[in-house]
Order: sequence, then structure tokens, then C-alpha cells
Amino acid sequence: MKITTLEEAFIKELSDVYSAEKQITKALPKLAKAASNPKLVEGFETHLEETEGQITRIEQLVEELGISLKRIKCKAMEGLVEEGDEVAKEIEKGPVRDAMLIIGAQKVEHYEIASYGSLIALGSKLGYDVSLLEETLEEEKATDLKLNQLALAKVNDEAESKAGKRQAA
Amino acid sequence: MKITTLEEAFIKELSDVYSAEKQITKALPKLAKAASNPKLVEGFETHLEETEGQITRIEQLVEELGISLKRIKCKAMEGLVEEGDEVAKEIEKGPVRDAMLIIGAQKVEHYEIASYGSLIALGSKLGYDVSLLEETLEEEKATDLKLNQLALAKVNDEAESKAGKRQAA
Repeated sequence: MKITTLEEAFIKELSDVYSAEKQITKALPKLAKAASNPKLVEGFETHLEETEGQITRIEQLVEELGISLKRIKCKAMEGLVEEGDEVAKEIEKGPVRDAMLIIGAQKVEHYEIASYGSLIALGSKLGYDVSLLEETLEEEKATDLKLNQLALAKVNDEAESKAGKRQAA
Repeated sequence: MKITTLEEAFIKELSDVYSAEKQITKALPKLAKAASNPKLVEGFETHLEETEGQITRIEQLVEELGISLKRIKCKAMEGLVEEGDEVAKEIEKGPVRDAMLIIGAQKVEHYEIASYGSLIALGSKLGYDVSLLEETLEEEKATDLKLNQLALAKVNDEAESKAGKRQAA
């Protein structure tokens, strides 16, 4: 795919994040199964619904702009998803695994925050209506914040007390 | 690598970001060569120096804590670096490529912001002195902001006017 204009750059970037979102919808049910803290399980389930909505928004934008997405696979998200799979393999179910699942999920959120932020900047320059992308960006930021709060409030404490118990044992 | 405690999770995460930083030091000189906007070239060069300092900080922390890092390769960063290589292949040198290089660099920054943020949360729970990690986190945030300003102020405008010229031609 040769890119020579900012519009083509926008399409490439939108195709990349579309691939990323599709990969995330496949990963989230596995993450929900791998987690044990009920709030985290619920968080992954809620985020799956949100992600489906974000995919619909991309499809809506594609239609509005009359563009076609490229079939590409987002390699960065592939790596992030692989790292999430490793967490489930390397760590037994419980609070330490939950803490690592949250870290992985926050990396995913940050990837998306960077992607949507860039798309909004590019799209605005091109004179596009980027309000759909802005809605998604706000959702991603809110999810990152929720994960942060969950990590600080509960999961890390549980993981620490478990680690403490092991040391004492 | 089996992980059962929060301390092991911290070591795994620190090993991951250490691998990520090492990969970034290899990628940055290529990015500087691929860029054309002088401020962007300079930005990549400055960030290489910063990254070397961040690696030193990790090594210092490892010594302070008396821990050993695991030899792992950060897969997410591998994907991000690959995407950067693609940009240089798919787009001729100039403002559109610069705009895409900035997007890639911001994704890298966001990966690191999520990593260091998580490490600070984990390390604090473990009672570690995380001030070295906090210094790095602030640097990464500042770099992301600089890239944002550069993208908004200059590169996207250049890319747009180039795209405009092509359409007019």
C-alpha cells in the first residue's frame, strides 16, 4: 500500500485501528474468563460491548466519508494480545494475574488513545467530521481511568496480601 | 517464567519495558534518517539520548533493589517498531511520511506511559522507591506532548498542503 497523501494516511490509520478493535473483541472474552475479581470480569464484559459500538462507529464513518478500509492486520495489537495470552499461561488465576491483566489492558487502551488522537488530528486537518472518533476517544480514556482505579483500589492490594501470605508461609 | 507474587510481576514488567527501551534505541536512528522535518529529526535524536538515560535508570533501579531482570523480548514493541519500518517503506520521504512517523512515535510513547504508570503502581504497593520510574514517566509524557505540538503545528499542515498540490496538479 503506497501512501502519498494525508487522506491515504488517514485511511491506513483507520484501517489499522479497525483491525486492532476486531482483535480486541476476540481477546476480551478470553480476558474475562482469565480474570477472577468480579469487577474486572464485569469491566472486560462491558468493554466488549463498548468495543462493538466503536467498530460500528468506524463503519459509520467509512460510509459517511465514502472511503474504503484496507485489509491490514495491526501488528502492534497482535503483540499486545499475545502478551495478554502469556499472562494467562504464566500466572495462576487470582489477584496477581488480575494485576497483570489490568496492565495489559491499559497498554491496549493507551494504544487506542494514541490511535484515535492521531486520527482526530489528521481528520480535522482534512476537514472531516471527527465527532464519532471523539466519542470513542472519550470512552477509551474513561476505560483506562476505570482500570487505574480498579488496580489501585483493589487488585494490587489483594495481590500484595497474597504475596505477603506466601512469604509468611 | 512462572509468576506467583507481585514482586515477580514487577520484575516481569520491568524486564518487558527494558526490552522495549532497547528496541527503541535501535529504531530511533532509523526514524531520524527517515524523517525530513528538521524539528522532527532533532526530536528523534534528543529522544535517543533520553532513552539511553532511561535504560541507565532501569539498571540503577535493578541494582538498588537487588533484583535480576528476565531476558524477554517485548512483543508489543516489536510490532510497533515493525509498523514504523513499514511507514518508511510505504511512504516517500516528506511531510506525509513525517505525519505517520509522529503517529508511530506517539504509540510508542503511550506504550511506555502505560508501562511506567503500571510499574509505579506495582512498585509503590511493594514499598519500593519508584522515583527513578517517575522521572522517566514524566519524560515520556513530555515527549508525547512535544510530538503532539509538532504534529499540530507543522507537519500535518505541510502534509495537507502537499496533498492539496497533488490534487491540483
